[in-house]
Amino acid sequence: MTENYRAMWKDLGLDLEAHDGLLAVLGEAYQDIYLSQKNRPAGMGYFDFVMSEVHGLRIKELLDEKKAGRKIIGSYCVFVPEEIALAANATLVGLCSGADFAMEEVERILPRNTCALIKSSFGFKLGKVCPYLESADMIVGENTCDGKKKAYESLSDLVKNLYVMDLPQVKSDHGKALLKAEYNRFRKAVEGLTGIPVSDKSLKQAIRTVNAKRTAIHRLSALRKADPAPISGLDALLANQVFFYDNPERFTESVHKICDELENRIAEKNGVFPENTPRILVSGCPQAVPNWKLPFIVESSGAVIVGEESCVGERGTRNLTDETGETIEQMMDAIADRYFQVDCAIFTPNPDRLKHIQEMVAAYNADGVIHYGLQFCQPYLMESMPVEKAMEDANIPCLRIETDYSMEDVGQLKTRIEAFIEQLR
Amino acid sequence: MTENYRAMWKDLGLDLEAHDGLLAVLGEAYQDIYLSQKNRPAGMGYFDFVMSEVHGLRIKELLDEKKAGRKIIGSYCVFVPEEIALAANATLVGLCSGADFAMEEVERILPRNTCALIKSSFGFKLGKVCPYLESADMIVGENTCDGKKKAYESLSDLVKNLYVMDLPQVKSDHGKALLKAEYNRFRKAVEGLTGIPVSDKSLKQAIRTVNAKRTAIHRLSALRKADPAPISGLDALLANQVFFYDNPERFTESVHKICDELENRIAEKNGVFPENTPRILVSGCPQAVPNWKLPFIVESSGAVIVGEESCVGERGTRNLTDETGETIEQMMDAIADRYFQVDCAIFTPNPDRLKHIQEMVAAYNADGVIHYGLQFCQPYLMESMPVEKAMEDANIPCLRIETDYSMEDVGQLKTRIEAFIEQLR
Repeated sequence: MTENYRAMWKDLGLDLEAHDGLLAVLGEAYQDIYLSQKNRPAGMGYFDFVMSEVHGLRIKELLDEKKAGRKIIGSYCVFVPEEIALAANATLVGLCSGADFAMEEVERILPRNTCALIKSSFGFKLGKVCPYLESADMIVGENTCDGKKKAYESLSDLVKNLYVMDLPQVKSDHGKALLKAEYNRFRKAVEGLTGIPVSDKSLKQAIRTVNAKRTAIHRLSALRKADPAPISGLDALLANQVFFYDNPERFTESVHKICDELENRIAEKNGVFPENTPRILVSGCPQAVPNWKLPFIVESSGAVIVGEESCVGERGTRNLTDETGETIEQMMDAIADRYFQVDCAIFTPNPDRLKHIQEMVAAYNADGVIHYGLQFCQPYLMESMPVEKAMEDANIPCLRIETDYSMEDVGQLKTRIEAFIEQLR
Repeated sequence: MTENYRAMWKDLGLDLEAHDGLLAVLGEAYQDIYLSQKNRPAGMGYFDFVMSEVHGLRIKELLDEKKAGRKIIGSYCVFVPEEIALAANATLVGLCSGADFAMEEVERILPRNTCALIKSSFGFKLGKVCPYLESADMIVGENTCDGKKKAYESLSDLVKNLYVMDLPQVKSDHGKALLKAEYNRFRKAVEGLTGIPVSDKSLKQAIRTVNAKRTAIHRLSALRKADPAPISGLDALLANQVFFYDNPERFTESVHKICDELENRIAEKNGVFPENTPRILVSGCPQAVPNWKLPFIVESSGAVIVGEESCVGERGTRNLTDETGETIEQMMDAIADRYFQVDCAIFTPNPDRLKHIQEMVAAYNADGVIHYGLQFCQPYLMESMPVEKAMEDANIPCLRIETDYSMEDVGQLKTRIEAFIEQLR
C-alpha cells in the first residue's frame, strides 16, 4: 500500500503507528504463508491484490461510497443478511477479528477465558487498527454465543451505532418467527440509517447479487473435488474470506475467472499438490483474516484442505435465497428461510451439521476431518465431541484441535497434525 | 443414614460403593464446615437432619410419593416453575451438581473447559451416585447458557425422559411470548406425565405453596440485615439450598421456625459473629450442595456473608407470583411474568442485576461484594466485569473470584479473601 492512505487512516482515527505495525506483520505473514506457495493459479493474483489493499484501496472505495451517500454496515456474523443491507443502499462488510491485538487492554474489559475471535474484535477497536470498523455507520452484533452476546454489552460503550440482533436458539416455529421479526426490524433500522426504503425491486436485485456471490463460491468449492487439487486450501480459504470484504459483483467475477482457470488445470491434471495427497476437511469455528494458522500447518505437512465446514466457508455460503418472491414480504420470508438453515452450533439440537460434515467428506473425497475449535468457544467445542463420535461411527478419521491465535502451540499442533496425516496415507 | 436405604439405592441403580464414598466425603465436609460452627441457631438442627438424610429419608419420601401415583421431576435451573409441577401432581427437585465426581468419564463427553456445575451434573449421572436423578420421572433441561444448552444434547443419551425447555435471551415482547409458550408446553408435558390436568384450583394452590416458601426465605433474608448477624452465611445458604429439595410445606414451616428464633437472637444482640464483623454480599454463580467452598473460606477469615445474589439465593427467590388470577390462563401469565423478571446473566442486556446487587448491598448493610464466578461460566464471568465497574462507580469494594469445585486453589483464595476483608475493616 502506498503512502497515499495515511491521511485517510488518520481521518478515520486509526493509531498510525500501531496500524503500521499490524500491516507489517500482516504483509510478512502473507508473504510467508501465501506468496511462498508453489504453482498457484494466476487468478489468485486478484486476491493477492485485494489483500495487499485490504486496508487501503478497499477502504477508499467504501469512503467514496459514503461520500456518494451510501452507508457502510459492519458485521461479525453470517446471520446478518447482506441482501437487506444492499437493498437499502448500504454495503455490508465483515469486521476484523482474526489476530491478537492490544490484548492487555482487551483483558481489562473481557475475561481472559474469552475466545480469540471475540477478543480480537475488541483488540482491533481498542488498538484503533481496523479501518472497516471506523468506517462503519452501523455495527451489527448478534446474540449467537454467550461470549459474543455478553461482549456486545461492553462493545456498546466502545463504538457508536451498535445494533444488536436477537437470534433463536432452537429451530422451532417460534425460533423462525423470531428470526423473521428480527430481520424485519433490521430492515427498518437499515432503512432508517440510509433513508432509503427497501423496494421489491431493490430487494430482488440484492438477493440476486448475493446469490451470485454464493453461486460463484459454490462453483469454486465444486472444483476442489478434483484430485490433484487444483487450488490449495489456503487460497480457497482466502476467497471465502474476501467474500466478506469485497465489492460483490467484482468478487463474483473474480471467482468465476479463477474457476475457469481451475477447470483447465483439472483437465490437464495440473494440481497444486501431487495426486493422492491426503485430503482434509476442516470443520468448526470460523477462520477470519489473517487467521491462516491451521491451513498453513496442514498444507506444509503434506496434506491439502479440500473444504471448510465453517462460517468462513460452506456453512456461511450454503443455500441460495429463493429468488421467486415478488413482494417484499415474500422475499423477506425467503431470506429468513435461507438463513434459518445455517447450522451454527449455537442451535440445539443441531443434527444438520453432523449430516453436512459427512456430506462434505463424501463430496470432496476427504480422507479425514480436522475439527477446528477456538479455545473457550463453548458451542463448537461442546459440539466437537458429538462430531468426533459421528465421524468414528462413520469410519472417518477425525482430529479435534483446540487453539487460539497465538503461535505458541504451532510446534505441538504440527506434530499432532503430521501424525494424523500419516494415518490417512 | 442407616443401612435401611441400601436396598433402595440399589433398586435405583446407584453404584453403592461409589455412593458410600460420596456420602463419607459429604459427611466429613458437613462436619468440618457446618457442625464445627459456634453458637448456631437451634433451628438449624432441622437442616442438619435434612442434610444427613438428603440421600436417605428424602429419597424414601419421593419414592413413597411415586408409589402413591405422584411423579418426580428433576431440574437444574430456577427457570423451571415449581408451581406447574405441583399443580399437576408432581414434585420438583433440584438435581445434584455441587461436587466433582467421575471427572475422567465426564471429560470423555464434555470438553475439559466446561464449568464445574455442568460437569458435576454429568459426573453424578455417570458415577451413578444421584438418587434424585435416578428417581426422577422427568428431567428438565433448559436453554440458558451455551454450556448447559449444548450439554443437554449429550445428556439426552444418558438419561431417559429428558425434556428441554427453550428460553429467551432478551427481555423483549418476543422473549416473553417465548417464555409463556414454553411454560404452557411444559404444563402440557407435565400433565402428560402425571395424567392429571392442571386445574384453576390446583394451580392457585401451587402458586400459594411456592410463594409461601419464598415468603419464608424472604423473612430469613430480612433478618440477616441485623448486626451482629444472627445466622451465618453458611447456614443461610444451606436453607437456600434445601429450598430445592425439601417438601415445600415442611420447608416453609422450618424456615419460619428458625426465623422466630433469629428474631429473639436479634433482640438479644446474640450474633454468630461479633458486632461490626465485615459483611459480605456474594454475587454470581449458583452454589449447589455441597459447594460450600466460598462461604467457608469467607466465614473462617473473619467476615460474615449477609446475602447471596445468586440462583441459590435471592435471584432465585425474589418476587412472588401474583395470586389474584382466577383462570388457568391468568395464572400461567402471572407465572411467566414472575420468572421473566429473573435477572440471570444469560439475558442481554441485564441491567436489573447491577441494580439488584446495589440494592442488596444497601439492604443488608454489606461492606463489600465478592463476585463468585465458576471457571468457564461465560455469562457470569463476562458480566463480572461490568459488575465490578458498577461497584467501583458506587464506591463498593468488590473482589472478583473465579474458581471451580476443586480444593487446589483454597490457599490462594483464602489469601485474596483475607486481604479483601482486611480492606473492609
